[in-house]
Amino acid sequence: MQFNLEKSIQILERTPSVLKALLQNLPEDWTTPNEGLDTWSPYDVVGHLIHGEKTDWIPRTKIILAHGSDKPFEPFDRFAQFEESKGQSLAQLLEAFESLRVKNIEKLKALNITEQDLSKTGMHPGLGQVTLENLLAAWVVHDLGHINQITRVMAKQYISEVGPWTQYMGVLQ
Amino acid sequence: MQFNLEKSIQILERTPSVLKALLQNLPEDWTTPNEGLDTWSPYDVVGHLIHGEKTDWIPRTKIILAHGSDKPFEPFDRFAQFEESKGQSLAQLLEAFESLRVKNIEKLKALNITEQDLSKTGMHPGLGQVTLENLLAAWVVHDLGHINQITRVMAKQYISEVGPWTQYMGVLQ
Repeated sequence: MQFNLEKSIQILERTPSVLKALLQNLPEDWTTPNEGLDTWSPYDVVGHLIHGEKTDWIPRTKIILAHGSDKPFEPFDRFAQFEESKGQSLAQLLEAFESLRVKNIEKLKALNITEQDLSKTGMHPGLGQVTLENLLAAWVVHDLGHINQITRVMAKQYISEVGPWTQYMGVLQ
Repeated sequence: MQFNLEKSIQILERTPSVLKALLQNLPEDWTTPNEGLDTWSPYDVVGHLIHGEKTDWIPRTKIILAHGSDKPFEPFDRFAQFEESKGQSLAQLLEAFESLRVKNIEKLKALNITEQDLSKTGMHPGLGQVTLENLLAAWVVHDLGHINQITRVMAKQYISEVGPWTQYMGVLQ
């Protein structure tokens, strides 16, 4: 599948409802455990997605369109959610994420990105030169990757309970 | 997390809406490609989940409760969906899965499974002796594992498009 802005937006705009369908109103046994030291719970992941809406995808898109590779992206703080989510319920985080994502899709559409724009480049602090197409595709894959992570973390809560089935369950490996 | 029937049902009953949120109304570029030879597309996975509702989880639960290990489970056909889904749209499969799952949750609740029942055993054709608790936990993990698979297959459609970001994206490895 080749990159397509409209088909990318079709994924980006549904992520808030996927997360709500997956996590809303669940007991904390499902949403707050992680996979062990230095790993993230579903709750942590939603906070991380919120931080991305504020500081990553749209700000970087605007940097590429306005400055190209001349102005490197701000480094992304992968641990911001541990402070920013404090005191907030998962329900509040899910609402906040949805609200930010809706606004960011509006901003993305309002930029009227053309085929030519997609090949414009930016400077990533860790990855070096990237295109706008790379950035927008990464936004989509980042969403899917974190839904993937959440389902894996949840599945692992039953790693002992499935007994002999462990060997049939790739998600537990 | 220890096995808990109510908390298991909270996952099982939301899977149809998670799948709808994730897949409904998407173009086929997202839903029909797979990961290569002998792998499954999101469309294939939904067909597989339908076959499980018909032949796997509830029928096996009933075998354990009625016969224990004396009557081995029927082997599960992992390829049934390639025939059974023929001619059906993804939207039709998502509706069919939801309808079957709603009925199966009703059946599961109507069985009034007790703590004692959970330790009853059945005979799996490949895994040998398993408990009812193992079976019901495996149903939950199987759901989460297939949502996990669907998001991975979708993410991989942009494996080239993300460019240098590939190395940051665990879901693409």
